[in-house]
Amino acid sequence: MTKKKEPIVSVVMGSDSDLPVMMEAVNILKMFHIPHEVYLTSAHRAPERTALFAKTAQKRGVKIIIVGAGAAAHLAGVIASQTPLPVIGVPLDATTLGGLDALLSTLQMPGGIPVATMAVGKAGAKNAALFAVRMLALNDIKLGKELAAYIENMAGDVLKKQEKIQNALHPEN
Amino acid sequence: MTKKKEPIVSVVMGSDSDLPVMMEAVNILKMFHIPHEVYLTSAHRAPERTALFAKTAQKRGVKIIIVGAGAAAHLAGVIASQTPLPVIGVPLDATTLGGLDALLSTLQMPGGIPVATMAVGKAGAKNAALFAVRMLALNDIKLGKELAAYIENMAGDVLKKQEKIQNALHPEN
Amino acid sequence: MTKKKEPIVSVVMGSDSDLPVMMEAVNILKMFHIPHEVYLTSAHRAPERTALFAKTAQKRGVKIIIVGAGAAAHLAGVIASQTPLPVIGVPLDATTLGGLDALLSTLQMPGGIPVATMAVGKAGAKNAALFAVRMLALNDIKLGKELAAYIENMAGDVLKKQEKIQNALHPEN
Amino acid sequence: MTKKKEPIVSVVMGSDSDLPVMMEAVNILKMFHIPHEVYLTSAHRAPERTALFAKTAQKRGVKIIIVGAGAAAHLAGVIASQTPLPVIGVPLDATTLGGLDALLSTLQMPGGIPVATMAVGKAGAKNAALFAVRMLALNDIKLGKELAAYIENMAGDVLKKQEKIQNALHPEN
Amino acid sequence: MTKKKEPIVSVVMGSDSDLPVMMEAVNILKMFHIPHEVYLTSAHRAPERTALFAKTAQKRGVKIIIVGAGAAAHLAGVIASQTPLPVIGVPLDATTLGGLDALLSTLQMPGGIPVATMAVGKAGAKNAALFAVRMLALNDIKLGKELAAYIENMAGDVLKKQEKIQNALHPEN
Amino acid sequence: MTKKKEPIVSVVMGSDSDLPVMMEAVNILKMFHIPHEVYLTSAHRAPERTALFAKTAQKRGVKIIIVGAGAAAHLAGVIASQTPLPVIGVPLDATTLGGLDALLSTLQMPGGIPVATMAVGKAGAKNAALFAVRMLALNDIKLGKELAAYIENMAGDVLKKQEKIQNALHPEN
Amino acid sequence: MTKKKEPIVSVVMGSDSDLPVMMEAVNILKMFHIPHEVYLTSAHRAPERTALFAKTAQKRGVKIIIVGAGAAAHLAGVIASQTPLPVIGVPLDATTLGGLDALLSTLQMPGGIPVATMAVGKAGAKNAALFAVRMLALNDIKLGKELAAYIENMAGDVLKKQEKIQNALHPEN
Amino acid sequence: MTKKKEPIVSVVMGSDSDLPVMMEAVNILKMFHIPHEVYLTSAHRAPERTALFAKTAQKRGVKIIIVGAGAAAHLAGVIASQTPLPVIGVPLDATTLGGLDALLSTLQMPGGIPVATMAVGKAGAKNAALFAVRMLALNDIKLGKELAAYIENMAGDVLKKQEKIQNALHPEN
Repeated sequence: MTKKKEPIVSVVMGSDSDLPVMMEAVNILKMFHIPHEVYLTSAHRAPERTALFAKTAQKRGVKIIIVGAGAAAHLAGVIASQTPLPVIGVPLDATTLGGLDALLSTLQMPGGIPVATMAVGKAGAKNAALFAVRMLALNDIKLGKELAAYIENMAGDVLKKQEKIQNALHPEN
Repeated sequence: MTKKKEPIVSVVMGSDSDLPVMMEAVNILKMFHIPHEVYLTSAHRAPERTALFAKTAQKRGVKIIIVGAGAAAHLAGVIASQTPLPVIGVPLDATTLGGLDALLSTLQMPGGIPVATMAVGKAGAKNAALFAVRMLALNDIKLGKELAAYIENMAGDVLKKQEKIQNALHPEN
Repeated sequence: MTKKKEPIVSVVMGSDSDLPVMMEAVNILKMFHIPHEVYLTSAHRAPERTALFAKTAQKRGVKIIIVGAGAAAHLAGVIASQTPLPVIGVPLDATTLGGLDALLSTLQMPGGIPVATMAVGKAGAKNAALFAVRMLALNDIKLGKELAAYIENMAGDVLKKQEKIQNALHPEN
Repeated sequence: MTKKKEPIVSVVMGSDSDLPVMMEAVNILKMFHIPHEVYLTSAHRAPERTALFAKTAQKRGVKIIIVGAGAAAHLAGVIASQTPLPVIGVPLDATTLGGLDALLSTLQMPGGIPVATMAVGKAGAKNAALFAVRMLALNDIKLGKELAAYIENMAGDVLKKQEKIQNALHPEN
Repeated sequence: MTKKKEPIVSVVMGSDSDLPVMMEAVNILKMFHIPHEVYLTSAHRAPERTALFAKTAQKRGVKIIIVGAGAAAHLAGVIASQTPLPVIGVPLDATTLGGLDALLSTLQMPGGIPVATMAVGKAGAKNAALFAVRMLALNDIKLGKELAAYIENMAGDVLKKQEKIQNALHPEN
Repeated sequence: MTKKKEPIVSVVMGSDSDLPVMMEAVNILKMFHIPHEVYLTSAHRAPERTALFAKTAQKRGVKIIIVGAGAAAHLAGVIASQTPLPVIGVPLDATTLGGLDALLSTLQMPGGIPVATMAVGKAGAKNAALFAVRMLALNDIKLGKELAAYIENMAGDVLKKQEKIQNALHPEN
Repeated sequence: MTKKKEPIVSVVMGSDSDLPVMMEAVNILKMFHIPHEVYLTSAHRAPERTALFAKTAQKRGVKIIIVGAGAAAHLAGVIASQTPLPVIGVPLDATTLGGLDALLSTLQMPGGIPVATMAVGKAGAKNAALFAVRMLALNDIKLGKELAAYIENMAGDVLKKQEKIQNALHPEN
Repeated sequence: MTKKKEPIVSVVMGSDSDLPVMMEAVNILKMFHIPHEVYLTSAHRAPERTALFAKTAQKRGVKIIIVGAGAAAHLAGVIASQTPLPVIGVPLDATTLGGLDALLSTLQMPGGIPVATMAVGKAGAKNAALFAVRMLALNDIKLGKELAAYIENMAGDVLKKQEKIQNALHPEN
């Protein structure tokens, strides 16, 4: 399966400087072998490109769109208004306001056009992809099993970290 | 199709006082004929009921969980941590802080367990259900057509309101 | 001069419920006899109507666009990205967050596409129109004189209010 | 007295990266010779481990639970909902929002399940342990005397710092 | 047992206008038959009265102090600095800032003097008393049983509300 | 002594709608028999009137200027920049932001030109006048005694309110 | 065309430390060959210089004033109150509050005196100049074409960045 | 005149780590030759020392008290409640919240006990001393002249900075 063929999740961002944060989403999609693409566009600097992307995504076979944007983060909402696909927004910390501007610009969508908003920054980017996995697993038994294993592993990681802490505190044990 | 049979969307809330707001979600689900249930539980006052709900939802056939909660709104995150299903959170304005507490408690989930957060209050409740519709429409052609019609209608409503305003401003026309 | 002919200022809003606030702008435009129109569209619910409006405004002779919107207020930015005309944004208080969401969504535009943002609500709507007057007066001597008179009158109003207060405090004088 | 035996205060945290901050609590407990344990669990990544911890803490002889968590800090509330023991929450600064998210997520508990919240970060971690000491001193005369001495010492430290400042400002004296 | 004799919990507030909110604490204490007193003093308007109260509370047999205050809510911190007893703070919504001022003034205590802070307003006042009950139950088996019953009842109440909602939604059932 | 003659405190406000709040200052000045004036001007609508007021206040015998203003509250800073007299600012709650805009606009003066800022609204207006009394009492023994009595009375009021509460809670006593 | 002759845009700032941020505006003006000046004055430290500047700007041929200021950013409002020219405000991040103080002090102007506010910091400074270009292009066909080209170029830049990202992700292609 | 003799301004701070910021106040007092002292005390860690300081300040000849404190900054309010002298508060940025906690804790004093609050941090510390100078100059003609000169110099500094900028931009001139 080649990533650039038939992507079913599109990871969109407003600026190439957003890539390091949005890689958290990409890496999760890679881990679960979800065909995906990385797409750069801007609600404000490239509105026609954005509209074209949004209007053709469904026809191209994309099922879920993840959008990272900072400042007055309109990109997720603008895309959501031009596609019936589920859109997940990741507010980015790109100004002096700690991401509060992007958070409110992404989240406070008026009734009618939903954007599923995640936490600001890397945690949000990672969770956006995990949310896509949860959606896709509804109709994909194999993926569902991988997701269940992933969730179980997280609990296991906590146990390992407990040991690590314990050793740090009581090296003699 | 009876609503109480085989719900595929579960609308959960932390208090019966949240019902008027969460009815915005219920009404959208009714409009799209999505089998659903309304479930009341509390992350804090009824943790075992909450855990039981979360752990058995998938087996009962539920596909999507919508959770409304106010104040230190843990309910969506607590449920999301005990089910692989996609969970949509609706922060409610239940304190003196305008919903900012519920918003941050719902949204700022750490990496690993996603909650798809919507706007505070009624707009968010409505959009939670519309997001569920977008998800379900990925695998339901009929629902997809209804969703497309719904989206198109919104644009039509804007036209009607334009006329209404025009008449209010220039009654002579 | 008929208002509906050749508007040079377009007052746009996202919802008919915004009209009472945006009338502050309309009333200033009427007072200065600026040909204007009131236009209702939504960045999210009517994106094509919005794009069409933005792309054709200049050709229709519109010189300045005033946009009022609440919540995740994308409308001003979305219009500004599709026209070279100056766009003035008025954040509206439409949610439980006191207009902070609309304020940040309108103001925090990334470099490249400016939106001239005014205060939240009625003061902002009024000032949006007065800012349009200041712009138009740069090339309209008569309007410049009316603007100068308006500014002078405000100082006079302060004097009258001083007397009113004085009488309220010392009715014997 | 071995720390790992019969802990009466449990210091819980959501991530091993929280340890440097939570050591402020550990160090106070060490200073007052309060038997304690350091426990790592996650409300979201390890919900069963968290539930087991909360439900068995009282039986294991734990009297007070201190919980540090960042972001959508649900851990303290989730534990408090599954134990009758007093739970003290320490919001941690783990995101771009300066700890405001953790603060509101920990503090704004609905009526019924209290979490005693301390300041964000190190000051809060230290005070969480000092609050535990105040509680335990209610029934421990010796500990009460040590607490009184600790409080008195703080006033003495202020005097020493005054001298230090005085010398810095007037080295000739 | 007369309330005015031998109070072991003191409910302190800065203004008689705070009483309706702080009654949430008083009512919980009454329900659990905890001897208590209601005490009015002000950190700023009656500093000597406040100091005398704080310094003598322990000798009078008080074990826990609950303090409600609004605006620049110094009262809890000022009392905590003059007694070794555990002090629980309840920030009140008494200004135009939704209680954020009282919240930060009560919570952000520097390391050394802890104040256990509860949610803003009525939920916080109720939880302050419930936290006192949790503390006292550590050394009072009977109270511990009553607390366990109270906690269990909350889960039962959730069930009753579920039925109420169910009937409201489906009256035919 | 006639108030309009020789005022030594000037109470300035930006709008006649501010009078009800600023009367809290006026009433304190009346109570302490401080000659004062009420002056209405606007930093923005009447800049020359404001400059004239500021530049001549000292020559007219004014010693202290109290300024109430809302929204982008520039008035106190603008006056302080044009007089060497001490200026006290009272931020007013005049917009949808709870007075936070006025608070920051009044308080965050850059180094060089101080404005002594009080709390938002009525408490701030009252305290502005009490701060003026504290200043004037530095050189007025009689006023100093009245101030001391005022401060003592506040403590007495607390006692009376304690009785009132006590009776409300235990009417039988 | 010499910049210091006949400036039609004046870029004003409150401190020389603001220059690196405000150069974003200057550079845009240079790129579009708009005659401009850089002017340093302070609303608070140099009120007469500020008043003189504001009152004479129009006569000197200035058409648009861009003002950058931090903290209690009064400068834009103070200038706008003394000139009929359009004034664009750029809030700067100059304190510990992330520019929120400057933002609200610049934006929340009362009805009557508009300040067109841009985003905090460099993005805002750049957009202030671009907004000035949009205004001037209303009456300058050549400038209008340059502006159109600039806008088109932004969309082109997005395409180039897409390629750059693509290559970074798939270097083999 | 020796500084340690007969101080008339007391600069108080809660921690020796506050000294670098509060030196801004000390340096202004030195520049104007105001006899002053630097005093370290803590509302919470040394309440008796604080009370003693506050109650005896007036008798020692102190006329004005400047107080710098961070976090839940109670120190200024606690001192103001125990002295009739004017108290100036400087909120310090000592936590993860950018000084917002100290700002609200210092500013939002209830009616009755005023604290004249300055900006957060160094600008506030400097202005606190300048406000003290303004107060003292009311009854000190020589100081009044020095203050007038200081104010005039600030305007001169602006001119010098203008030249500096001009040269940086146009080194050839």
